[in-house]
Amino acid sequence: MDKKALYNLSYGVFMLATKYEGKANGCITNTCIQVASNPTRVAVSVLNTNYTCDLMKKSGVFALSLLDESCTFETIKHFGFQSGRDVDKFAEISLPLDENEVPYLGWQTCAMLSCKIVSSEDLGSHTLFIAEVVDGKVLSEKAPLTYADYQSNIKPKPEKKKEDKKIVGWRCKICKYVYEGSELPKDFTCPLCGHDAEDFEPIYE
Amino acid sequence: MDKKALYNLSYGVFMLATKYEGKANGCITNTCIQVASNPTRVAVSVLNTNYTCDLMKKSGVFALSLLDESCTFETIKHFGFQSGRDVDKFAEISLPLDENEVPYLGWQTCAMLSCKIVSSEDLGSHTLFIAEVVDGKVLSEKAPLTYADYQSNIKPKPEKKKEDKKIVGWRCKICKYVYEGSELPKDFTCPLCGHDAEDFEPIYE
Repeated sequence: MDKKALYNLSYGVFMLATKYEGKANGCITNTCIQVASNPTRVAVSVLNTNYTCDLMKKSGVFALSLLDESCTFETIKHFGFQSGRDVDKFAEISLPLDENEVPYLGWQTCAMLSCKIVSSEDLGSHTLFIAEVVDGKVLSEKAPLTYADYQSNIKPKPEKKKEDKKIVGWRCKICKYVYEGSELPKDFTCPLCGHDAEDFEPIYE
Repeated sequence: MDKKALYNLSYGVFMLATKYEGKANGCITNTCIQVASNPTRVAVSVLNTNYTCDLMKKSGVFALSLLDESCTFETIKHFGFQSGRDVDKFAEISLPLDENEVPYLGWQTCAMLSCKIVSSEDLGSHTLFIAEVVDGKVLSEKAPLTYADYQSNIKPKPEKKKEDKKIVGWRCKICKYVYEGSELPKDFTCPLCGHDAEDFEPIYE
């Protein structure tokens, strides 16, 4: 199988937040689709190692902020590149709350969906949640950010290899996991956060 | 709830085909995402009234052709605007077959995924299938067609209203269902094929 075939699936980019017993957390995801109407339902897939996934299983609710083309890398980094187990991502920002008291983004966001989970299925690496959309708001007239836009316009380009130094390992830029060895297999997936080899940076001796 | 919030979810556009006891059928869908890795799994949502949905439940396999930006309205019309209950959509075209003998598009398509269904959930209007990706091929270097591209570049624009004649009904352009009455409610959904009010055309007296 050519895994690159999967890169041709199209996605949006979202900030997915939940709150359980007063503790809010959020992450960045790109896998959400509407799956039914009357009632309106969406499906969202979340990495099992994400703290947001743990909290969603307990709270039964989430808010999805649909990021728009004005989204900056800082926003992606804040919600996507650190874990809510280590930092409170909502500590120093004031955000609007949906009807379940879950925060959503009031900026860089074209729409929000407020959702109530009706079922979930553990698929090994990820859990797939199916949820009823109980509220929705349009927040800007800007175009939704697609995952392809994120890859080409927002994500920083990898630095050029420093040919003069020996590579002794590879560090996941997302979760800082370290792979020991000079060559990272091309099909390597981070055992901690599930990101691909292209999200690793070399560690020089 | 503002239903327009849901219009900001981003999608690709796909030709979804299956084959059961020698009978192949395919339809157009925009709801497919990767939901897990190791093994690689996708989720796809299909309208319950679609003949393809019936066949998928029996065959347990499908092939997804990921349409690219060269896709024409004729292709969408052929697979999306007629039912396999009335016509054999594969009768006069010669297509490659995947390892399950299911046809996929050899043109206007940037990639294909060959899938084996592992579970399904009936959500009322649609069934959500979760499937393992058993094969994948890249077929062109063209950009994937997004649903937003389809709406703005490929779908024909609605004709201007003929102000001089009285409207007596509305016909669904997708499945030909007829709504009787001069004004079609804006939030109307076709009870037969699930398309929105904007896919209806007026019937004049």
